[in-house]
Amino acid sequence: MTHPQPIPVTLGIDIGGTNTAFGLVDRLGNILTESTLPTKVHPTCEEYLRSLNSKIRQIYNDHEKKSGQKMRLIGIGIGAPNANYYRGTIEYAPNLTWPGVVPFVEMMKGYFDVPIVLTNDANAAAVGEMVYGGAKGLKNFVVITLGTGLGSGLVVNGELVYGHDGFAGELGHITVNPDGRHCGCGRKGCLETYVSATGIKRTVYKLLADFNESSELRNVPFNDLTAYMISEAARRGDRVAIEAFEYTGRILGQKLADTVAHTSPEAIFLFGGLAQANELIFYPTQRHMEANLLNIYKNKVKILPSELMDKNAAVLGASALAWKELESEGLLLE
Amino acid sequence: MTHPQPIPVTLGIDIGGTNTAFGLVDRLGNILTESTLPTKVHPTCEEYLRSLNSKIRQIYNDHEKKSGQKMRLIGIGIGAPNANYYRGTIEYAPNLTWPGVVPFVEMMKGYFDVPIVLTNDANAAAVGEMVYGGAKGLKNFVVITLGTGLGSGLVVNGELVYGHDGFAGELGHITVNPDGRHCGCGRKGCLETYVSATGIKRTVYKLLADFNESSELRNVPFNDLTAYMISEAARRGDRVAIEAFEYTGRILGQKLADTVAHTSPEAIFLFGGLAQANELIFYPTQRHMEANLLNIYKNKVKILPSELMDKNAAVLGASALAWKELESEGLLLE
Repeated sequence: MTHPQPIPVTLGIDIGGTNTAFGLVDRLGNILTESTLPTKVHPTCEEYLRSLNSKIRQIYNDHEKKSGQKMRLIGIGIGAPNANYYRGTIEYAPNLTWPGVVPFVEMMKGYFDVPIVLTNDANAAAVGEMVYGGAKGLKNFVVITLGTGLGSGLVVNGELVYGHDGFAGELGHITVNPDGRHCGCGRKGCLETYVSATGIKRTVYKLLADFNESSELRNVPFNDLTAYMISEAARRGDRVAIEAFEYTGRILGQKLADTVAHTSPEAIFLFGGLAQANELIFYPTQRHMEANLLNIYKNKVKILPSELMDKNAAVLGASALAWKELESEGLLLE
Repeated sequence: MTHPQPIPVTLGIDIGGTNTAFGLVDRLGNILTESTLPTKVHPTCEEYLRSLNSKIRQIYNDHEKKSGQKMRLIGIGIGAPNANYYRGTIEYAPNLTWPGVVPFVEMMKGYFDVPIVLTNDANAAAVGEMVYGGAKGLKNFVVITLGTGLGSGLVVNGELVYGHDGFAGELGHITVNPDGRHCGCGRKGCLETYVSATGIKRTVYKLLADFNESSELRNVPFNDLTAYMISEAARRGDRVAIEAFEYTGRILGQKLADTVAHTSPEAIFLFGGLAQANELIFYPTQRHMEANLLNIYKNKVKILPSELMDKNAAVLGASALAWKELESEGLLLE
């Protein structure tokens, strides 16, 4: 059976250090077809783009053939590290092999004649939460992505905050302690050195060093330890693991109180591996945030799990970015 | 000589704990006439409002008579502590004698049939900077007001950030040290306990306690000490006074780096008494902010003195609020 009207779709692309995920997404957030491509195997960005685009066309055509449903690509959203929304560039991204400033949007335009939007991955996650997730209808909220590092996207008055240079929302690099843990950015004591999958590993090792408490984690080398192992140990009652979550939630809660004093969001969504530890991370974070809030903000700000957690949020976020852009430019006239 | 066309004006009202200042302001930011009224002498808010409004009518009529120029009041902007923009209320303001939640805008509407906007004084200062001052044409900036406390107004995408509850932008209450100085808000270590006219006094006393350095400030009782005296002593080479500014600028610079990681402003304006110490406060603030910025933000963010510093900025800010509101609602059709 063939439908007479092609269905409008956007293409969401999430560029990670290791893999690039991409998919074609309809207005309701259904990923119709998706695939991945290793990011690093291509010696140049040009070759990477050639492979990416041939693979996109392939899944596009395969899906049309298989489903009998014609699609119409109307926009592309891209999430990438160190992405600049205004300039459409990826700039000095430490996890990518492309040097300097890459005019990524311009290069993509060689392949596609539709609007193309680029922003950092956490900003894309925030737009995804707004379009498809728990932030539908919210005008002021924050998304914190907890992965290897800590990313963030701020929404104010219903719009993503890009700042004057396109780089706003780097809460992973607000300072917890100017003499604290060394950060990949070259500075010390950044929030993501405490609050992230890597941060909680460092905290476990600090606790193992400072205290004599026995712990199953004393048998695990640093390089083998994962946030998931820490949450499993905590569920089995391991006191070091429990204390590591408490410590992580305390620092996150204290810093989110400062974020509330900036933009007074209605909700803060936590996304990613650490957030899947559920109450282990949410309870201490909420408690310490409340304890540190100015009285006018108390008992108003919800800390919630992202509603995109079990889905391919990165692809959804990137595609949502395209829908949002088309909408705000009045190009969605269906 | 009488002009045939009445000149459109807005009324700016700044409600302080001690005095209320108000004035009639034209579109270019000229205060045509202004006056003040003690805030606290009236036992109730109703009586205060009656006096305020009779005095407003008086200066209005006097000015028309004196200048021969008819005016047309088209809007009112009000800056007040603990003001809620969305609800038009002043809520539990510690420096005012009116208890609980005062529906201030509603009460004013009993006197004037024009649009009335209320927000906190630092937000009004930010709008003033945008409409009449150094932030003309800027879409992303921050204003920090340094008085007895520290107030702030954040502008993102050309709009003031109110947050979901109308209370965004309380940077005076982000935390420098959770075990630090006691704050009037009931918490500890808030930024304004370090960075404000009162904060630098506390810093001088801490330095006098910690070090043996001789200083002219050793002869001044705490209650007599002013930020102006500290800046004068610093200019005379007093090392304790100089170190107090360095300490203040360090803490402000560190925290502004965190603010940049939130909204990435193009400029940060400092306003108020402490800002008048010029390079004594600007140099260390700029230096420490730069040292604490994530690399993508370095050498981009200007720290500037407010351009409304010598003017009646509070009245201008409040009146600018009204102009901005009229403009955004499409009510300025000239």
